[in-house]
Amino acid sequence: MLKLYYAPGTCALASHIALEEAGADYTTERLYFKANQQNSPEYLEINPKARVPSLVTKRGVLTETPAMLAYIAQTFPKAKLAPFDDVFAFAEVQSFNSYLCSTVHVAHAHKLRGARWASEESSFADMKRMIPKTVGGCFALIEQKMFRGPWVMGESYTICDPYLFTIAQWLEGDGVDIKATPKVADHFKRMAERPAVRKVLDAEKV
Amino acid sequence: MLKLYYAPGTCALASHIALEEAGADYTTERLYFKANQQNSPEYLEINPKARVPSLVTKRGVLTETPAMLAYIAQTFPKAKLAPFDDVFAFAEVQSFNSYLCSTVHVAHAHKLRGARWASEESSFADMKRMIPKTVGGCFALIEQKMFRGPWVMGESYTICDPYLFTIAQWLEGDGVDIKATPKVADHFKRMAERPAVRKVLDAEKV
Repeated sequence: MLKLYYAPGTCALASHIALEEAGADYTTERLYFKANQQNSPEYLEINPKARVPSLVTKRGVLTETPAMLAYIAQTFPKAKLAPFDDVFAFAEVQSFNSYLCSTVHVAHAHKLRGARWASEESSFADMKRMIPKTVGGCFALIEQKMFRGPWVMGESYTICDPYLFTIAQWLEGDGVDIKATPKVADHFKRMAERPAVRKVLDAEKV
Repeated sequence: MLKLYYAPGTCALASHIALEEAGADYTTERLYFKANQQNSPEYLEINPKARVPSLVTKRGVLTETPAMLAYIAQTFPKAKLAPFDDVFAFAEVQSFNSYLCSTVHVAHAHKLRGARWASEESSFADMKRMIPKTVGGCFALIEQKMFRGPWVMGESYTICDPYLFTIAQWLEGDGVDIKATPKVADHFKRMAERPAVRKVLDAEKV
């Protein structure tokens, strides 16, 4: 049995959706950031980075969304969430997810998490002003150069799709109009209609 | 034949070393950042992100270090650079490399690339002051919680090793004393002695 530690509104949603799409047998535990539960001694034993998500497996704990998504896809091959029989196609999936984690998520994080990289209020305000431009720029690149359609990688739904959907959820709050990227906007709408996604969004609302 | 686009001193070194360790048949092309070659129309056709590394394969171009490293390992399985026969062990490799790209490299990038996320000189100066603390904190976590020894993942040399070595090369410039993390320091020394690493460092010096 897998166990996912998550908090609503975070990138943990991507792995949560992937677990559901995979038909995995899993449980979840919500962390309350307002109570600083991610820094509790109990949670730091699970994930010393004090972040979500964490995925507890019988072999040990996994962290980092791209790694967890590939693990979920590989553990439940019948769901066909990644092209493991094609080394290059799998690398393309990994490349997309790596871009999301190292560039797009990081750009977004400068809105509220500036204290990770700076210490002055003026720097935080400066970073916040850049968000529409930086996050918008990332999504423009995704729209123009990466997204194939109807799913991120083309005809097949993969672990790239819940991850893109997760980060696209932040666009409105980041001051980026999703309508500027019509393929991403259409993808977002279709993702939100998938039964697995609706179930997970409902579960995270509780 | 694979072709790696790189610039010296960048994270492209990790893939360069991995290609050499894998015994791959490959060529390289250096980009001169001072001449802004990463933004030339020719290079933007190859990599619209205007970054290095890029790996040109017969199927298309791959970008993002974690994806490229896994691709190299998977394409040259005899070199045994990743545990593809063990889903969990492979996920641990991916998790480590994802942490390097999304957290450690990003922390370092705030020293000279602050303009990616802010616009004021005062913000850049603020970010620079944080570098020893942020990068040092990442390496303390690697030392205490992630590094197994003698290689990152334990007994087997994997694609985590050239990537850690690559980022550890930046520590001195980041004002972080590698001696504060003795396991990382010892790993760095042993990596630098490997024939493949020496060959690649020499090639990038030209």
